[in-house]
Amino acid sequence: MCKVTFLPHNREIEVPVGDNLIRAALKAGVHVNASCGGEGVCGKCRVLIEQGEVAGGVSERLRPEDVAKGYRLACLTGVTGDVVVRIPVESAIDASVLNRMASPRRTAAIQHMDFSSLKEQGLFIPPVEKVFLQLAPPDAQNNMPDVTRLIEYLKLKGNEHKLELTLPVIRKLPDVLRQDNFQVTVTLVRPVRDDGKTLVIDVRAGDTTTANYAIAMDIGTTTIYGQLIDLTSGECLGEYGDFNGQISYGEDVISRIIYAEKAEGRKRLQEVVIATINKVIGEIFRQAKVDRENVATITLAGNTTMTQLLLDIEPRYLRRAPYVPAASLYPPFGASTIGIDINPNVIALLYPVVSSYVGGDIVAGVMGSGVYRSEKLTLFLDIGTNAEIVIGNKDWLACTACSAGPAFEGGGIEFGMRAAKGAIEDFSLDPVSFEPMLVTVGNVRPKGICGSGLINMTAEMLEMGVINNRGHFNRDLQTPRIRSNNGIWEYVLAWREETQIDRDIALTEPDIDNLIRAKGAIYSGCMTLLEEVGLTMDMIEHIVLAGGFGSYIDLDRAMTIGLLPEIDADRVTFIGNGSLMGARMSSLTNRIRKDVVEVTKKMTNFELSETPSYMSNYVAAMFLPHTEIEKFPRTRRRIEGRKL
Amino acid sequence: MCKVTFLPHNREIEVPVGDNLIRAALKAGVHVNASCGGEGVCGKCRVLIEQGEVAGGVSERLRPEDVAKGYRLACLTGVTGDVVVRIPVESAIDASVLNRMASPRRTAAIQHMDFSSLKEQGLFIPPVEKVFLQLAPPDAQNNMPDVTRLIEYLKLKGNEHKLELTLPVIRKLPDVLRQDNFQVTVTLVRPVRDDGKTLVIDVRAGDTTTANYAIAMDIGTTTIYGQLIDLTSGECLGEYGDFNGQISYGEDVISRIIYAEKAEGRKRLQEVVIATINKVIGEIFRQAKVDRENVATITLAGNTTMTQLLLDIEPRYLRRAPYVPAASLYPPFGASTIGIDINPNVIALLYPVVSSYVGGDIVAGVMGSGVYRSEKLTLFLDIGTNAEIVIGNKDWLACTACSAGPAFEGGGIEFGMRAAKGAIEDFSLDPVSFEPMLVTVGNVRPKGICGSGLINMTAEMLEMGVINNRGHFNRDLQTPRIRSNNGIWEYVLAWREETQIDRDIALTEPDIDNLIRAKGAIYSGCMTLLEEVGLTMDMIEHIVLAGGFGSYIDLDRAMTIGLLPEIDADRVTFIGNGSLMGARMSSLTNRIRKDVVEVTKKMTNFELSETPSYMSNYVAAMFLPHTEIEKFPRTRRRIEGRKL
Repeated sequence: MCKVTFLPHNREIEVPVGDNLIRAALKAGVHVNASCGGEGVCGKCRVLIEQGEVAGGVSERLRPEDVAKGYRLACLTGVTGDVVVRIPVESAIDASVLNRMASPRRTAAIQHMDFSSLKEQGLFIPPVEKVFLQLAPPDAQNNMPDVTRLIEYLKLKGNEHKLELTLPVIRKLPDVLRQDNFQVTVTLVRPVRDDGKTLVIDVRAGDTTTANYAIAMDIGTTTIYGQLIDLTSGECLGEYGDFNGQISYGEDVISRIIYAEKAEGRKRLQEVVIATINKVIGEIFRQAKVDRENVATITLAGNTTMTQLLLDIEPRYLRRAPYVPAASLYPPFGASTIGIDINPNVIALLYPVVSSYVGGDIVAGVMGSGVYRSEKLTLFLDIGTNAEIVIGNKDWLACTACSAGPAFEGGGIEFGMRAAKGAIEDFSLDPVSFEPMLVTVGNVRPKGICGSGLINMTAEMLEMGVINNRGHFNRDLQTPRIRSNNGIWEYVLAWREETQIDRDIALTEPDIDNLIRAKGAIYSGCMTLLEEVGLTMDMIEHIVLAGGFGSYIDLDRAMTIGLLPEIDADRVTFIGNGSLMGARMSSLTNRIRKDVVEVTKKMTNFELSETPSYMSNYVAAMFLPHTEIEKFPRTRRRIEGRKL
Repeated sequence: MCKVTFLPHNREIEVPVGDNLIRAALKAGVHVNASCGGEGVCGKCRVLIEQGEVAGGVSERLRPEDVAKGYRLACLTGVTGDVVVRIPVESAIDASVLNRMASPRRTAAIQHMDFSSLKEQGLFIPPVEKVFLQLAPPDAQNNMPDVTRLIEYLKLKGNEHKLELTLPVIRKLPDVLRQDNFQVTVTLVRPVRDDGKTLVIDVRAGDTTTANYAIAMDIGTTTIYGQLIDLTSGECLGEYGDFNGQISYGEDVISRIIYAEKAEGRKRLQEVVIATINKVIGEIFRQAKVDRENVATITLAGNTTMTQLLLDIEPRYLRRAPYVPAASLYPPFGASTIGIDINPNVIALLYPVVSSYVGGDIVAGVMGSGVYRSEKLTLFLDIGTNAEIVIGNKDWLACTACSAGPAFEGGGIEFGMRAAKGAIEDFSLDPVSFEPMLVTVGNVRPKGICGSGLINMTAEMLEMGVINNRGHFNRDLQTPRIRSNNGIWEYVLAWREETQIDRDIALTEPDIDNLIRAKGAIYSGCMTLLEEVGLTMDMIEHIVLAGGFGSYIDLDRAMTIGLLPEIDADRVTFIGNGSLMGARMSSLTNRIRKDVVEVTKKMTNFELSETPSYMSNYVAAMFLPHTEIEKFPRTRRRIEGRKL
């Protein structure tokens, strides 16, 4: 890590070697005009290197004498060691204003899987165990059937009294027993309930106890991720993600359900999701280079629609009132019976779902993150096209889901796009000149705006008074960037020549309105859920963010626009793909599989459409940050500070 | 029934209308010379109708004046009412000798399935129950998942607390529930153990409780029988049997195992047995005209080889010392998973096996006949190429199997054949002239000898002194029928012109020797098994015969040759296809399914090859009836009576 000091603000930040100075500045909360995404085209991001060495940053846009003085283009300059950088500002007042306004970026701390605590608590008990057995070969005096021999031995030596063998294992047993003189390794799957049966799902010659693997998978609407887990060490041996093949049949769950209602549609969707799963499995085995015969379980988590489509279960009732899923808990079943390309003894375990819109991915997140064991009142939030909200602690859990709309994924936004190369992902605003500072994914010229960019822009503009609390631009500001285009007011983020698309890229009032609706839906969802259980937002002690989107959210700015309640950023954690985390956790400990049955029952689902207060909460949340600004004291303070 | 009185013997017998007089005579133990099987060719069976009316019997072989006097050919004469028939004999002495020697035929009483006693004992609890449910449709306040709704209802209204749904049922549930406003009929499969789970294997709209069927099947080496059982009434709605398609790959289990060891052999055998099963199922449904969707279970019983081949399990270790089967108990499994053409929710239940040669067919027979609940010391005997022997009562059971060889099925017998049209199935001998009386299957000219014919011939010849206790012909008897043919002594049963095969049909000394070996194996098997448990033959209180062969055995003659121990014929019962009977019984009551687990464990298997006394018992049994004739007092009395 290198220390970067920005002057005249006198702000210090640590960044990894190789980061460019634009990103470092943004992270530090220091504004530098920059609108070409880091390609050196706009030439605006001139900075002076006062101490230390940097790499690059020299450009035709700089005069040789300036280069000689130490000027560089920040977007082209890589940090190689400790460095002191001066940002040229028009006046000392400018510098102090800039300094006062800006706040450094703050993303949620990443909460990793709590694997060591599992071990400490003695809970590292994988649901699958491999046991090496040295049976006595049969002779004339003792020629009991092979299965009986195995079971009797396990009873006697392993104190196993409730065993059941599957037909495929019985089929293998006679030959396998005789391959290595009745020395075999059996794979035992533990029951969820203590009074249940232990299933013998595989038997192999010799001692193969060290090769014991599980697959964990997240079946997302957009992407499918898989991990290969080593059950002896807990390690991840391979990981791969790919787009869910169902994407061709609709972007969101509703369009998938509609497609499934067509003739052969459901069958087709089942086939393509299985095809993706098989591709992911192929890839993780290619990475891990282990024998796929040694896999015993595959744990899958997905939302309710994905779960039902995976199993070829009619999903039409999920999108029609009163929104009834087929099942909550699914029995274990042979993974190969639904087409998964794996040996027939592998057992598929599915995360249970709570309701039509709170699915196995959320339950997995709640289990994986440990929310269900927490003493603290926790808000668990998975933001995507739909936002799922869980509130509670170890004693109780309430959940709901709301449609956030596609704004966070760039949908319904004039220049919206996913967080792909060229997407403006971060933004800051010069409070004096109202010139922008853009950072794009991949440091290339901008193509559009992604979700985190949208949030950051809106927050900055709100704080700087560029927009008001209804998201309307201040028409009085002296900047060519704010203009009316065919009657729609907008702020030009990048001029045509600075972009990849040969058009001005702008943020429009309807874009901001879409964002307000999205964040309003989520916030009012949280509010309503809290009210239903008799609590208020300020009682929340911990926020857990899940989903790909959560990792990029700048917490301060998310609070500024009222997407998240104001809370100490230290109390917000990010778990990434909670669904995959949960699937992996239950591959590693049977405790989770036991607990999840109770947790799922405990998760009280609220249908927002059936909760009258939701609509009034929604209307109140249709402001930036909220109609009741006193709920957001920090934001109020900053907005008021700007006015001085 | 008509009363037929034979003179001069003065024997009366009741026969059904239409029986011919030859069969009536044989049944009564009255000898009439007859060797053309009932085609009127030999013309020997002249009898005089003294009272009453008969149909037919007139032939060119009779002079018109004899016909006028009332003479008829017995083999062509049908009984139409009470009748008095005189058999022409050479002298009064002849008549008295004939009368003294002969004994009427006596087959075992048929023991039917004890269905009414099941009901009386309250044991008519089919393992499958259909229950009609009227669920409350979901609404906004109550939109729990469909499966949860079903389970909660069954918990509350049906006191069902351990339920599990299979994936196919979950798949059907959403649509089926909504077909008839949440009125559905569920199919519940009860667990074998009281602490097990009840499986919900089907759900259908509306009230279908009256349509509840099960299939019972016997998977025999030679034939496969199936029955469709109505679980509400206990009735059999359809029955069909067909040759096991595996016959093309070998007649007995050993040759099937050998075939299975070839490349793809096992797969092929599995396919063809499944094809036969599907044919049989198709036929019973065609007969019963019911909807096959309403079948819930299929119970199958077969010997150990058939069981393993059905499930595609390597059978090679069954025929190699120490003769180890793959498993004793098999888990229930989806019938369609092994290719049975039935809806995927149908559960296949397999009868457990005891050892390589005491299979599920025998266990089913023991269960179906009630041997396992009997107070009496019972000998259960299933005779075929292999003979399986079970001895015991409600407290204990011992079993074994021995190879009887194919003699009882006509194998290894010069003119041997199965009990098909033209097979000599019964026989009597004139003790003076040594002329035969033949009865053939289908009353046609003879083609060969079947198992029951062989036993009856050997018994008659032994009693009449035509053969000695080693099965050798008495070379001194004055009859052209006993002759040496290329050094082999034989008795000519039918002369060339009386047969269908244009050759003399004879019984040879090697034939008799083969029979002695077969019956000796069975008898010594019983002896050895009794000795192993510290008992003797005279302690047996009840004999249960199973298998197709048992129905034709004349009990007296079977005891005469030493195939069965001498016991009051009233204490011998015949259960027919015990395997099918057992399969049907467990379709009707879960009690059998519970008991069979314990019974199978209780059945102590003895390998005769490992029991030293078996060989000495075998050698002692290689006489007619036995080297210790005092074990057969009735036979001794008859043989000694003949000498007087």
